[in-house]
Amino acid sequence: MSQPFDIAVIGATGTVGETLVQILEERDFPVGTLHLLASIESAGQSVPFRGKNVRVREVDEFDFSKVRLVFFAAGEQVTLAYAPRAHAAGCALIDLSGALPAEQAPRVVPEANAELLKSLSAPYQLSSPSASVTALAVVLAPLHGLLTLQRLSVTACLAVSSQGREGVVELARQTAELLNVRPLEPRFFDRQIAFNLLGQVGPADDAGHTLLEKRLADELKQILADPALKVAATCVQAPVFFGDSLSLSLQSATKVDLKAVCAALDSAPGIERVEPGDYPTAVGDAVGQDVVYVGRVRNGLDDPTELNLWIASDNVRKGAALNAVQIGELLIKHYL
Amino acid sequence: MSQPFDIAVIGATGTVGETLVQILEERDFPVGTLHLLASIESAGQSVPFRGKNVRVREVDEFDFSKVRLVFFAAGEQVTLAYAPRAHAAGCALIDLSGALPAEQAPRVVPEANAELLKSLSAPYQLSSPSASVTALAVVLAPLHGLLTLQRLSVTACLAVSSQGREGVVELARQTAELLNVRPLEPRFFDRQIAFNLLGQVGPADDAGHTLLEKRLADELKQILADPALKVAATCVQAPVFFGDSLSLSLQSATKVDLKAVCAALDSAPGIERVEPGDYPTAVGDAVGQDVVYVGRVRNGLDDPTELNLWIASDNVRKGAALNAVQIGELLIKHYL
Ligand SMILES: NC(=O)c1ccc[n+]([C@@H]2O[C@H](COP(=O)([O-])OP(=O)(O)OC[C@H]3O[C@@H](n4cnc5c(N)ncnc54)[C@H](OP(=O)(O)O)[C@@H]3O)[C@@H](O)[C@H]2O)c1
Ligand SMILES: NC(=O)c1ccc[n+]([C@@H]2O[C@H](COP(=O)([O-])OP(=O)(O)OC[C@H]3O[C@@H](n4cnc5c(N)ncnc54)[C@H](OP(=O)(O)O)[C@@H]3O)[C@@H](O)[C@H]2O)c1
Repeated sequence: MSQPFDIAVIGATGTVGETLVQILEERDFPVGTLHLLASIESAGQSVPFRGKNVRVREVDEFDFSKVRLVFFAAGEQVTLAYAPRAHAAGCALIDLSGALPAEQAPRVVPEANAELLKSLSAPYQLSSPSASVTALAVVLAPLHGLLTLQRLSVTACLAVSSQGREGVVELARQTAELLNVRPLEPRFFDRQIAFNLLGQVGPADDAGHTLLEKRLADELKQILADPALKVAATCVQAPVFFGDSLSLSLQSATKVDLKAVCAALDSAPGIERVEPGDYPTAVGDAVGQDVVYVGRVRNGLDDPTELNLWIASDNVRKGAALNAVQIGELLIKHYL
Repeated sequence: MSQPFDIAVIGATGTVGETLVQILEERDFPVGTLHLLASIESAGQSVPFRGKNVRVREVDEFDFSKVRLVFFAAGEQVTLAYAPRAHAAGCALIDLSGALPAEQAPRVVPEANAELLKSLSAPYQLSSPSASVTALAVVLAPLHGLLTLQRLSVTACLAVSSQGREGVVELARQTAELLNVRPLEPRFFDRQIAFNLLGQVGPADDAGHTLLEKRLADELKQILADPALKVAATCVQAPVFFGDSLSLSLQSATKVDLKAVCAALDSAPGIERVEPGDYPTAVGDAVGQDVVYVGRVRNGLDDPTELNLWIASDNVRKGAALNAVQIGELLIKHYL
């Protein structure tokens, strides 16, 4: 094992933070002292790590000079408030909130653009992109060289856990109310999410796009280093607790050779391709797994230059916590 | 009121058939005697119509020479078995099962291709297309002249009611089992549908496409009379009881003028466009309504030749029963 690093996780009591701590343990990340941080609300709680209970403390009291690496898993405002402190203290930081611009903290999906780190210098500031982008980047990286990708149209059906703990609680509450034939009053989501699909996640700008959709396009193009790729994204809130499902239509300049696509997917890291005729689901396959599932590999119905795919991925693991830990592994192996 | 017609509805006890009978009443369809038919299983049951209970009888015993118009709302096998008898008896027939080829029984969505009937002759055999196609045809008909449509990519998230009564029962059962933390054994669907999305509906052919997806493309091209339109379709089973949700990406040969698109949608029949910034949902807007809801009218994120839309539609009403009744209205007004 490499020399241990003292580490902080901000948002350690959250959906992503809790999983991140588990993954640090599972993957034997060389952690020296682990500092778990959250808001004053949950300071004093404890979280298990390597058979011990680690006490959660308030981030505002934390002295960042105690650690060398900080995971930011507590929302944009928290990143904006504390990233400057961590950076000034010389920490490497990995942000999961998307708050920092790509110029300051580039998006990294190790399967796709690990080599980007070579062009950076300490103290490192990196971002794990939004959950659907990690899945897309893992799948598109091996296809990017193979096909002359021109256009991508994606409908991303997102789990309620992509909104954190409150999203999960709200879907459960609404479902129970409806099954018990009680009147429904939406709280966390502005409408009925149980047994429904919300075709827009968050407010849209004047052109009709949501922040999530713009982030998806921008982050994907940055990671694939392909600013010319045209991306159309629709992010949909689905009544699913965990696991994102993505329907993709890709346009190539030339005929898409499905055998070559399957071979490229099969030899790439982090992907499980399901057999033709079968298809993966969020709940049945992806949740709890590290790999991104791909199925329904097919041409357009009447267009051999088109490729259609169906992707299922664990939004909390590969979509966030695992990807961030993998970025951390890259950093400590080669750069810290 | 026009002169009354004696009519038969096959599948009158089903999801579509029951709604169809309601809509005949709601719209004051000139029904003389109404014959309600189903399998031997439900023969003897009765269904309310205009304040009376109409007894359901077994289709196999029925003498088709008693009626002038027959709605087939009981599945492909039933259509294949009894359409020849109805046709031989000189009845006009409207099929909802998709069993008859388009050459024999063309697909009709009155808002889009009513004039097709002019080229036909009695006894009329017509089909109401699959539910997502009625919604797509209503929305695309007014755009078809305006834009030079080249390519359509659609992800259609279908309600479980699109599989009939058994789909509805199964989602309710699975949801209750899960909320009560009981082990889940999928029955009607081959996997967990509650809190999950199934990225394939029915078996796929060797090229990876399902029958539903091929029907979607074929029916849409026939209705729009645009065989050159390229269609990529992904039909997804969603954990939604009623109402289909469609995410569309359309490619035009030239820049898409959003103002003109909105104006065309607003002046077309059967469409409710929701305001920019808002979006329709299946459950909150479409279910129980006759119109197809459209929202999120926007260009591609980085491509002005692209148009993205979000559609919500009642799969049982406009997707099936209402559209079939509208076809019937056309027939009796001009042709019978
Ligand atoms: N969930 C996903 O699928 C996903 C995927 C990719 C990225 N992300 C991003 O990851 C971040 C965390 O998301 P989540 O889903 O884990 O949310 P969550 O379940 O709501 O958890 C939020 C965490 O942030 C902490 N927190 C909130 N306000 C704080 C403050 N003022 N100071 C310190 N800590 C604070 C919470 O601590 P308390 O217990 O003290 O409230 C909790 O630990 C978000 O930026 C999200 O966008 C999430
Ligand atoms: N549901 C939708 O959203 C939708 C949309 C477009 C088109 N469609 C099509 O409409 C048709 C009906 O669908 P549904 O959703 O209403 O299905 P459903 O709820 O399962 O109802 C099926 C109906 O067919 C009858 N039936 C079954 N087997 C029969 C037989 N051997 N002889 C006579 N009647 C028989 C049933 O009668 P019993 O009571 O006797 O079993 C029942 O009335 C299907 O072809 C479907 O593809 C459905």
